[in-house]
Parts: sequence; structure tokens; C-alpha cells
Amino acid sequence: MSAPKKVVLAYSGGLDTSIILKWLQTEYGCEVVTFTADLGQGEELEPARKKAELLGIAPENIYIEDVREEFVRDFVFPMFRANAVYEGLYLLGTSIARPLISKRLVEIAAETGADAVAHGATGKGNDQVRFELAAYALNPDIKVIAPWREWDLSSRTRLLEFAEQNQIPIAKDKRGEAPFSVDANLLHTSSEGKVLENPADEAPDYVYQRTVNPEDAPNEPEIVEIGFERGDAVSINGEAMSPATILTKLNELGGKHGCGRLDLVEGRFVGMKSRGVYETPGGTLLLEAHRGIESITLDRGAAHLKDELMPKYAELIYNGFWFSPEREMLQALIDKSQEHVTGTVRLKLYKGLARTVARWSDHSLYSEAHVTFEEDAGAYDQKDAAGFIQLNALRLKLLAARDKRLKK
Amino acid sequence: MSAPKKVVLAYSGGLDTSIILKWLQTEYGCEVVTFTADLGQGEELEPARKKAELLGIAPENIYIEDVREEFVRDFVFPMFRANAVYEGLYLLGTSIARPLISKRLVEIAAETGADAVAHGATGKGNDQVRFELAAYALNPDIKVIAPWREWDLSSRTRLLEFAEQNQIPIAKDKRGEAPFSVDANLLHTSSEGKVLENPADEAPDYVYQRTVNPEDAPNEPEIVEIGFERGDAVSINGEAMSPATILTKLNELGGKHGCGRLDLVEGRFVGMKSRGVYETPGGTLLLEAHRGIESITLDRGAAHLKDELMPKYAELIYNGFWFSPEREMLQALIDKSQEHVTGTVRLKLYKGLARTVARWSDHSLYSEAHVTFEEDAGAYDQKDAAGFIQLNALRLKLLAARDKRLKK
Amino acid sequence: MSAPKKVVLAYSGGLDTSIILKWLQTEYGCEVVTFTADLGQGEELEPARKKAELLGIAPENIYIEDVREEFVRDFVFPMFRANAVYEGLYLLGTSIARPLISKRLVEIAAETGADAVAHGATGKGNDQVRFELAAYALNPDIKVIAPWREWDLSSRTRLLEFAEQNQIPIAKDKRGEAPFSVDANLLHTSSEGKVLENPADEAPDYVYQRTVNPEDAPNEPEIVEIGFERGDAVSINGEAMSPATILTKLNELGGKHGCGRLDLVEGRFVGMKSRGVYETPGGTLLLEAHRGIESITLDRGAAHLKDELMPKYAELIYNGFWFSPEREMLQALIDKSQEHVTGTVRLKLYKGLARTVARWSDHSLYSEAHVTFEEDAGAYDQKDAAGFIQLNALRLKLLAARDKRLKK
Amino acid sequence: MSAPKKVVLAYSGGLDTSIILKWLQTEYGCEVVTFTADLGQGEELEPARKKAELLGIAPENIYIEDVREEFVRDFVFPMFRANAVYEGLYLLGTSIARPLISKRLVEIAAETGADAVAHGATGKGNDQVRFELAAYALNPDIKVIAPWREWDLSSRTRLLEFAEQNQIPIAKDKRGEAPFSVDANLLHTSSEGKVLENPADEAPDYVYQRTVNPEDAPNEPEIVEIGFERGDAVSINGEAMSPATILTKLNELGGKHGCGRLDLVEGRFVGMKSRGVYETPGGTLLLEAHRGIESITLDRGAAHLKDELMPKYAELIYNGFWFSPEREMLQALIDKSQEHVTGTVRLKLYKGLARTVARWSDHSLYSEAHVTFEEDAGAYDQKDAAGFIQLNALRLKLLAARDKRLKK
Repeated sequence: MSAPKKVVLAYSGGLDTSIILKWLQTEYGCEVVTFTADLGQGEELEPARKKAELLGIAPENIYIEDVREEFVRDFVFPMFRANAVYEGLYLLGTSIARPLISKRLVEIAAETGADAVAHGATGKGNDQVRFELAAYALNPDIKVIAPWREWDLSSRTRLLEFAEQNQIPIAKDKRGEAPFSVDANLLHTSSEGKVLENPADEAPDYVYQRTVNPEDAPNEPEIVEIGFERGDAVSINGEAMSPATILTKLNELGGKHGCGRLDLVEGRFVGMKSRGVYETPGGTLLLEAHRGIESITLDRGAAHLKDELMPKYAELIYNGFWFSPEREMLQALIDKSQEHVTGTVRLKLYKGLARTVARWSDHSLYSEAHVTFEEDAGAYDQKDAAGFIQLNALRLKLLAARDKRLKK
Repeated sequence: MSAPKKVVLAYSGGLDTSIILKWLQTEYGCEVVTFTADLGQGEELEPARKKAELLGIAPENIYIEDVREEFVRDFVFPMFRANAVYEGLYLLGTSIARPLISKRLVEIAAETGADAVAHGATGKGNDQVRFELAAYALNPDIKVIAPWREWDLSSRTRLLEFAEQNQIPIAKDKRGEAPFSVDANLLHTSSEGKVLENPADEAPDYVYQRTVNPEDAPNEPEIVEIGFERGDAVSINGEAMSPATILTKLNELGGKHGCGRLDLVEGRFVGMKSRGVYETPGGTLLLEAHRGIESITLDRGAAHLKDELMPKYAELIYNGFWFSPEREMLQALIDKSQEHVTGTVRLKLYKGLARTVARWSDHSLYSEAHVTFEEDAGAYDQKDAAGFIQLNALRLKLLAARDKRLKK
Repeated sequence: MSAPKKVVLAYSGGLDTSIILKWLQTEYGCEVVTFTADLGQGEELEPARKKAELLGIAPENIYIEDVREEFVRDFVFPMFRANAVYEGLYLLGTSIARPLISKRLVEIAAETGADAVAHGATGKGNDQVRFELAAYALNPDIKVIAPWREWDLSSRTRLLEFAEQNQIPIAKDKRGEAPFSVDANLLHTSSEGKVLENPADEAPDYVYQRTVNPEDAPNEPEIVEIGFERGDAVSINGEAMSPATILTKLNELGGKHGCGRLDLVEGRFVGMKSRGVYETPGGTLLLEAHRGIESITLDRGAAHLKDELMPKYAELIYNGFWFSPEREMLQALIDKSQEHVTGTVRLKLYKGLARTVARWSDHSLYSEAHVTFEEDAGAYDQKDAAGFIQLNALRLKLLAARDKRLKK
Repeated sequence: MSAPKKVVLAYSGGLDTSIILKWLQTEYGCEVVTFTADLGQGEELEPARKKAELLGIAPENIYIEDVREEFVRDFVFPMFRANAVYEGLYLLGTSIARPLISKRLVEIAAETGADAVAHGATGKGNDQVRFELAAYALNPDIKVIAPWREWDLSSRTRLLEFAEQNQIPIAKDKRGEAPFSVDANLLHTSSEGKVLENPADEAPDYVYQRTVNPEDAPNEPEIVEIGFERGDAVSINGEAMSPATILTKLNELGGKHGCGRLDLVEGRFVGMKSRGVYETPGGTLLLEAHRGIESITLDRGAAHLKDELMPKYAELIYNGFWFSPEREMLQALIDKSQEHVTGTVRLKLYKGLARTVARWSDHSLYSEAHVTFEEDAGAYDQKDAAGFIQLNALRLKLLAARDKRLKK
């Protein structure tokens, strides 16, 4: 790879990406463009502008954007249509944010004439893969720089030395090492590393940042009704809202009631297992409610096909293949299924639990006439079941007859 | 089908199966053998003996058996090895009990020279299918009688008339109609019908029988440690127990803390949707813990393959294909994966929540050396990630290059 | 089911459906509308008009239509996009024609105010299922009459008696029983029954009707080039043609060279196994060529996903679920994959073989620069493979390390 | 990676691996052990011994083994039980041989105290991945040396220079470059590269080495009967044979009749597409016959599950994951299905075609009584089909009713 001339950096404004910024300037002597996105991580973005300026970035090379609506509308919601969970439990909060960041990095590179993009993910994690696969899928000629895999600053001491040598201001609380590492966006907060590294040790309560401990949650349950149209949440308690507003509101509700905590050991794409603590308050409510509305509006054939394909779909997102033909094919299948996933679900939130207690829809396939214990008015002829069973049994009978025959 | 001469009836001792017993005698003039199984439904069995005798069944034709250990060991545990849930949520508590009952019915038929078996399931549900597919798979020549599909007693009034005409004692509380229908065994209690028929109405609290309302559960969390060997639970809090004892104990713990309630609309195999309320306290703990122990002992390739196949496996059990080649093939695959699923999981129970908070095992694949944020001692070379990403990206780059080329 | 008042009958003009026509009139006293479709079965349709008139059908109740283009465009081609084969070998020639017939039956019923449709399939086969599932999926209130399951004419003798009693003319060659039963359309000819009933006996050569015996095929190979656009064949040897024209032409070519014969035992949806002899000359060429063009235009991720889902897709068509949400979802996925499946494939036909020998496309993903044995110009860095392998191996190493550790 | 001290090299005796041998000695100064396996590639092995001795390898460090029986019994046959084909067509002839070689390399390393193994695969292909994943899966601590990824000898000129400098004899026909590259074993011969690099050019006939051109094959068809037990071929024309003998014999038969040629563009695991010409004469017969015997002995449920999982199984083998938990899990599932796959299949070979024309078995599930067009003796009640269809249709009717309702 020839040396990059101009690099768009995914820049948080924090110490690590500030060091990367300076390192790119000194190591490659290249021009740096910074991209700072508001994905709902709950940090102010303007300080990032100031820090970038301080590090010598020209104003026209500083991109600061609120992408929350795009994030929820084009990434989070399509994923929730699939009821995607990785390894049975993880709601993919980090995974789903990376492709959006890469998409903007590559677009800004095209706008600014940059030939490279850079990110602050380490060489051990999944995020490097997600950033880079997305970037290459969108521009096959882009260069991707991953400083953590290249430089010799991988110890805390060396990093701080480099920062001091380069006049990068170090916040007081960054001098010591954080007891764990955090990633956050509108969908979730994840914590991992350090105090969490032994999966036999319970996660200390201070790790959780976004949800109250269920034991401290209100003693009274709260009811929330989520409205759906074609598979996407469109309203809360009858009030229509934009995608990001809905997720923000659900985060408040879920967080208040201690919903969406997860302590997980997962298999990384790069090969080892890692332990993470995830908080996905709004997403947990959304998944429960989406399953609830599907339960009455989605046909069994459609629902079971979705369920069978979900693990693969989730794995693709986890592994960084959002921008891949197979993810897009699965999305076409999933979206096709959602045409009638319209209606309302009532959830009850209480001490960490979020349970569907009622659901209704004009698009419902539920037919009381067919299922009732009452004498039916001809909707269903119980005698049909005999033939249904006989023909389903036929191949099993032929198998059993063979066994009998061969035993003789 | 020629008329049966001798029938083995799945007999609960209750009003409905007593009526069936009498109806078989009068309709077909055939000899009846009763089979009453203790599956952990929480009812005494000896009254069934007396009622059978009262209805003229000879003592040698009355089979009363405690099959709880067989149920958990040979049916429930193998199913939990697969983390089986139907339509994302249902733990298959009813489905998994039916094949065992059919197995014993067919075996008793062979022992007693009976040519038929009979069950009390209606023509609208899944249970008839499960009973009958299992029976035919075990004996292709057996006759199966399903009175509810045959007789003209399908209204409550006609049933009670028939009972009175035939001197079948009717308990006082059976004169009126129950507000919902119940099935119970060691794994779960399910309720459906009547007051539950409108899925837009919340289930009244009196429907729940086996779990306290989470709001009434203890205010203090409780810790429980479940030990596993080769995928099966073998101990609780360090104390080794038999399969049925473990499930009984987990039911107590889960029930006390309000765990395992589920209010679901599901797609029946016979074609319509139905709404059920399920309580699976012990099973809910077991599933959570099993996923927890797998998370450190099962390789990613194995785990993901299991996850992809689970929906099909669950569907097979739900639909009544326990005794089928494809379920047995999937079981062989699943069991193969469980060789190292050995270790201990710590759960925290609180107000309906059952969450894994710690797990450990001699068979763990988790490697702190590989995952640590600390400078590593050579277990993992971060530079390898660059090549890994490049080759994973290659096909995506070729796709993107095509797009670029064609756009020119 | 209340008695039908007006029935649309799938009418071939042959003896069997003529008897059905009369039986409907006499049994139900209902008005009959006949629908005769040219699906490319190679029979003239006008005789059917005369026979219908002879049996008293009013001219406005006689529908005779050439649906070949619709058949190939909307049914055959979408199916071939999936490379669908049932049980590894069968190209689904009969299965794919049934939904189209049902669609027209139901549409004609709506146009003519009929409340029922009828077909001539027996109670043992798959076709009854395919006809009826399609009809119910398109009109939930339609009645479907399947005389073969209802009447008492199921022996040849009784049928002929009924024909004579009702003045239905019997062609001389229909007096005796045919040595096997045939179904044909533009995609294939299938033969089954009678002389074919023992799968240990070779099919006699006279069974084959549409393809020459490979031993009698030309001694010189023939080259044919098939052009594709977005997954569908659009030209032969450079000449653009309509869908039905293409399939007709491929049938000629394939038939002349003895391609597409298949002798198969298959598992029917209704439970038993049956043996069929199929001739699909054009379809066999089409499948080979479609795989050929996909091989250079379809990404590995897309292709493998298609391959994994194909058996389910084929099973759905075989079982009669063309008009089902899950088939439509899979079709959305498949169609999404075909956007770049454009280009040309050269086949060599010889003595029953149809093999791809060359393929090219502007949409090709094949990159000689990447694959060449020559020293490459930097398209691919072989050193990347080391990292790729290391990280793919990591989980396997961790497994092996566990085994080593536990053995100690 | 620290420098290896003793290396077991997969040594063919040819020029390339002789250069590798010398390069290992000079580059790493390490001791070399050679392993030369007879996998049925059709070359004599003793010359390899002489060449190794000439290059200074001590007699006790030269391993020459006939592993043909192990190859067919433990690798080829298990794979054929699955009917494995990659991307619809490729019979995995190269892929399946690599794990066996790695297994022996690792075993010999253990026996001889070597700390590394080496192979002669390039950095662009799949074989490097297969060799190395297998080695790491069997010994997590083994070093693997892939000279083609490391050295600077990657041009023909440099290689020959090195050979001359090191007194490695160069056969006359190796001075020029081969027009394509070949891999062979008892299952297949593959050719790729150079003259085959443009997939739009037909493969020249001289590429094919193991099969006659179908046009030159005998003008008379030949019949062959293959006997199976539990999924494996055990006899030909009634004569029992060992696994390798059977495959050898089938190769003769298939080769003589021009069967098993394949010209394919495939997606490599390392990311690019490549074009290969494969000859798998015996394997082609074996696959056809195995499908034939399964068609009468394998239940539909089992067969369809196998078909759905086959692409994944084939992909695992292609990608080099033979020694992985997921391949072993799938193998457990497949092997479970083969318990009754016992019987005989008659194939007709003619001009490249190998078609099943008859099949029979004591384990057959085919029931003429059920399928016959004759009036049946009660094995099957056609009226059952009505109920079967009604309940299969129910969900489709509910969907159609919704559409109707919403359109109003």
C-alpha cells in the first residue's frame, strides 16, 4: 500500500483518536479530515471541533454530523425487522453502528478528495473488521489505516508519552487507566475489558451506565404501547414519532425500569471469546414488541422462515458484512415479510422485565372463530384433522413398517 | 378402520377422560386399559385408580406410573441441549410430554394385546397430532381413537348429560365451565381458551398457577448455581440431583421469584393462531443457564450451527415429529456438540428475571491471554487481522469494482 | 360444504375430464365452465371446444387460452433463477404448472360468478394439493371439487360404464388402459404408474416421448449459446426471443440430443414414494447455462446463500406452496441476487450431455489479475493469506489446546 | 514465530517440493523430514525416496506411505454420504485430500520430534488454508511453513536459478513452464491456470488426462451395479471390494466412458474466482448411485434435511474445516441418516452420461401398495387427502381472507 495523502479519520474528540490524528500527521505526513458523528452516544460534539482545530485541522476539514435519524431509520430498524440477536442474546448494538460510520467516511473521502480513511479500533476486536469491510465494499480503492495495528504505542505509557510530546491535552481522568472500555450509541452501551475480563466474576454494578439496577427500579409497573407500521415502530402511547425519537423515548422507559441488561461471553469473528456487558434498554423493548406484533400479523410460514434465517443474518451484521450481497438478499426477504406487520403492542415494564401483555391489529391473522372452544359455526371441521394426521403419519408408518419387517 | 377390540386410553381420572372411557365401552363395545402417568402435573394418581375401577376397569388393566425421571432425562433434557424455543419464545412444555405418553400407550398396547390407543385431545389443537404421529411412528399398525373428533358430545351440555346417563360422578366445580383450559407437567403449565381468547385483552392474574406475580416476588434477589455435565444439568448449588429432582427444584426457585411467565400468540400446526399463557419457571432458568455454560464451552462454529438449526428442531417437536428420522438426526448433531458443555453457571433471580451473572468451567474456551487489553505475551498477533480483513474483503472489493466499472 | 352452483373445471378435452364434466352436471346439478389451457403440452385445443359443446357447455362458458408466455415468464423463469431441483434431481416440471392453472380457474370463477373449481387429479398424488392450495390462497371462499376423491368411479371398468351411459365418446385407444400415465407442458413430460411401478425395473424405451435415446442422438456435438439478462434467458445464439420461444427452441435442441432424461424415485408430499420418468430437455440446458452464467456474475456469498435455500424453495413448489408468503419471500431474496446475472454461456450438447464450456459477461466478477499464476501486479498480496489463516485457525487452536489440557 | 528446528515437509519428489526442501535447509538451517503419500495420484513413490536421499535426508526421516484405503474410507466415503457438491457441481476432489495429508504431517512431527510442518501450496489458493487449518486443529502449537508466501523465488526464472545453484536435478520437461497446473488423487484430477485462465475460452482437449472425450467413448453403453451398505459402496457387480479398490474400479469404468468432466468457475475461500477443469470419473458414478440408493431407502424428512445442510457441509470441506466441530456435528447427523442406506443401484454409462436406471433394497421404503394406480387394498384412503389439504390450506385461507378484508 502506498502512503496515504489525505485521510478521513473517525474522530471522537477523545484522547485516543486525538493521538491517532497526530500520529497520522507525523507518521504519514498526510492531511487529515475529521468526522465526528452524533450516533446518540450522549456526548456533546462541539468540543471535538475545538480539539480538532487545536490539532491543526482546517475548519473545512472538520465534519460534525447528527446522524441519529439515519442510524435508526436505515440501520437499526431494518435489523429489528429481522428480530436479530447474535448467539441468542446480543442485540448487536455496536455492530450495527459501524457500517454507517464507514459509509460517511467513504463519502467524505470522495467529497474531499481523500484517498484513505482511518479508525481507532484495535487489532483484537470485531470493529476493525466491520469498519474496513464496509469501507472496501463501498470503495474498492480506498485505503484503510488502522493505527492500533501499525504503531508502537500500544501500551498506556507509550500513548501518554506520545500525547505529551505532541502537546495533546490529557484530561485528568484519562491519566489513569479506565477500569473497562465503553462504546455507546443510541441503541446501546457496551462495556468490556479489565474488570470484566474474568467471566467467572460478576460485573460490578458501576459498569452499568444507562439502566438502573432492577432492584432500584420503580416498585410500580408501567404500561407502554408501541405502534408499528410495516415492521417499524412509529408511535409510543399513540403519539407518532420519528425513528430516533422513538428509540430515545424507549431508552428512557427501559432505562428507568432496569430493562435490557446483558452479561455475555460471545465468539468474536477474529476467533477468540470475549465477555461484554451490554445495556440496550430501548432495543429490548422494541424486540419484545416487534415479536408481539408479528405474532398476530405474520403467517407461520413466513415467521418460521425468518426465524431460521435470523442467526445467519445476525452473524453477517456481527461479522461486518452489512454491505454485502447476502445481507441485502436477506433484507429483501425480511422486508417482503413485513408488509402487514402493522398494529399495536402493549408492554408491561417492571424491574427489568418487559413483557407483551396485549396486541391488536387490523392486519391480524388471529381468528377467534377458528380457535374458539365454543361450538364453531363451521369455520373449521375437526374431521379434517384425521386426514391431516394420516398423511403426515404415512411416511412415519412406512419407516416403522420397515423396522418391523427387518426385525423379523 | 375396523372397530377396535381393546384400547389403551390416556386416562387422567378427570371428568373428560372418564366420559371417553365410558364412550369407548359403549360406542365400540371394546375392552379398555387405562394409563395414568405422573409427569409432574401435580395431581395425585391414586384417585384415578379408584375412578377407573368404578367404571369397570379390571385391576390388571389399570396402569399408573411415575414417569417423571424418564420424562426429564429422555425428553426434556435432550430438548434443552438444543436451546429449543418455538417462535422465539415458547419452551415447548406441552409438546415434549406427548411423545412419552404415546410411547407408553403403544408399549402397554403391546403388553396387553390391545389393538388401539385413545387420547382426549380435541380436533383443533396440536396435541392430537403429537399423540398420533408418535403412536404411528412406534407401531404402524396401531389404531388411534380420538373421541373428540368422532362423537356428538362436543358441547358441555351433551357431555354432562352423557355423564349423568352413565353414572359418571361429576365434581361440583366441573358443573360449570372452567374459564380456561389447563395442561400441566413437570416442565410447565399452559392455559388457553375462554377468557384468554382475545389476544388484545390482558390475561387475568388468576390464570397463573405456578409462579407468583413478579410484583409479589421477594424483594431480595436469590443466587442459584447450576452445574452441567455434557449439556445436562446435574447439580444445584453444588448438590448433585437426579434430572426430575433438578427440574422440581428449579421450578420451586423460579416459581417463587416469578420467573418464566409467557403470554403468547402462536401458529398451530393445524393452521390457525392461538393464544396461550405459559408458566415454565424451572425451564426458564435451565435455558438461561444452558446458554450461559455453552457461551464459554462451545466453539463459535458449533454454536452458530446449533442456532441455525434450532428453529427447525423446535418446529419438529411442536408439530409432533419427536419420533422422526429428522429429529433424531438433529439430535445426533446436537448431542455431538455437547461433549464439553460441562461447568457451572450462576444465575440471579429477582422479580421475574433470571440472569446469568457468572460462569466457569474446566472446559472453557475463553482465553484471557487472547482477549486481554493488556500487552499480550504473543498469544495473538494483531497484524494478522490485516490479512484476515483483506481476504474477507476481496470479494466485496471485486463487487464494488464491478459497480464502478459498469457505472462509467 | 354446501353444494356448488357453478363450477370452473380444468378441462383437457380427454376422456377423464369429460367424465368429470358430466359427473359434475349429474352429481351436483351444477353449471359447468370449462377451462382449457395451452401450456405447451403439444396437443391441439380446438377439439376440446367441440367436446365441451357436445357435452352441453354453452360457448360463453368455454375458456380456451394460450398461456405459454405467462407460464414461462411468471413461473418457469422465476423458478430457474433459483436453480431449483427437488431431491437433488427433479426439475419440477409438473409442480410449476399447477399454480398457473389454479390462478386462471379462480379468476374465471370470479368473472363468471362461479362458486367452485374442479380438477382431475387423484387422491394419491401431489397435484391435488398443488391445485387446491393455490386456489384457496387466491380465494379463501372458493369451493374445490376433486371428483377422484369423491366418486365411486375409481376403477377403469366403472369409468367406461359411466362414459357409455352418458354418451361420452371413447377414443379407441382409450378402451384399454394406458401402460403409464403422462403429464406434459412446455417444461417437461412426466410419466408414471403401471409399467413404471417397480423401481427395480428399467423404464422401457417407449416411455420416453420428447427426447431421443442418447444412443440415437447425433454423432456430432452441437454448440448453443444462451444469453441471459438479470437471471433470465433472453436469446439463443445471439437471437433475442420471448420466454416461451426460448424454451421451445431449447426443447428442440435438448430433445434432439437426448438431454434431460431422468428416472427418479421421489418422496411425495402426501407421504409415499413414487417413481417417475421425466423428460426436461430445454429445462436441463437452461439450468446448466444459468449455473454457468451465475458462476462468473454472482458473488460467493450470494451464491452460497442461494444454494442453502434452494432445497426449501424447491420443496415449497413441489408441495404446492407457490402462492405462499414464504415462497414469495424467498423469491424476493433470489430476484435480488439476479441483478447482475447477465451474460452469455456456451453449451456443448452431445448424446444426452449438456455441458458449459465457456461463459463471458460485462458483469463478470472473475479477475484474471487476481487469480493468475503469473507474477501479479499487486492486485493480491500473498502475505495476507497468513493472517487470514491465523485468525480462521484461532478458534480451532483454542479447541485443540483445550483437548490437550484436558488430556493431561 | 521463532525459527523451526525440525520440519516435516509434504514432499512429492517433484521439482517444486525439492526446491522447498533445500530452501528450508538453507533458510532455516533446520532438519527436514519428508512425507510422501500415495493418495492414488498415479505416480510411483520410490523415486521420491531417492531424490530425498540425494538432497541429504537421512533414511529414517523419509516417510513414504500408501494411504489410499484410509483416504477413501475415512474421508471420501463420509463425504459422499452427504452427496456433497460445492457450488452445485464440484465434487471436492482436492479439498478432501488435504486434511489427511495434514493429519499425517502432524502425526509424523509428533513421532519425530519436529516442531513444524511445511507444504508447497501457494498464497493464492485454497490449499494453503486447508493444510494449515487442519494442522492447527490437530496441534495448536505446531508451526506451519508456507514457503510460497515467504520466499523471493516466486518467478519461474528465480526458481530454476535456485535449483541450479543447489544442484537440484531439473527434469527436461520442467525447464519450460507447464501450460497448466495439475493436482491428482484417487478421487480426481484437477487442472487450472495458464491456458485455462480465461473462462470464455474452451478448455483444450489435452487438459483432460483421466477421462476419454465422450465423443471417443465406446458406442455401446455399459451397465454397472453398485452395492451399498449404510451409505458406503461395498461392491461392484456383486463383487465385494475394499473402499480404495471400489473407487479405483469406478474410475476405470467412468474414465472409459468419458464420465465426470467438469469445467467450472468457482469462488475461492480466499476471495477471488478461479476456473478449474475437474475429472472425477469414479466419484461421479458414486454420487449418482448414492442418490439412487437413498431415493428408495431414505425417508423424505431425512433426505430433505440432508439436502438443506449439504451446501454448508460442502463449503466447510472446501474451506478447509474438515477438522472442526461443525463438520463433525454435521457428519454425526449425516451418518445417523445412513443406517438403512443399503441396497443396489444399476447405472448405465454411455458417452459421458452415468444414469440410474434401476435400484432395489431390502430396506426400501417404496411401497407399491400405496402408490399403485390399481384399486388399492386399503393401504391408503384417498379421502384423507381432503383433510390434509384443508389444514395445510388453513393459514393460506386466513391470509387471503385478510387481503380481502383490507381491500374493502
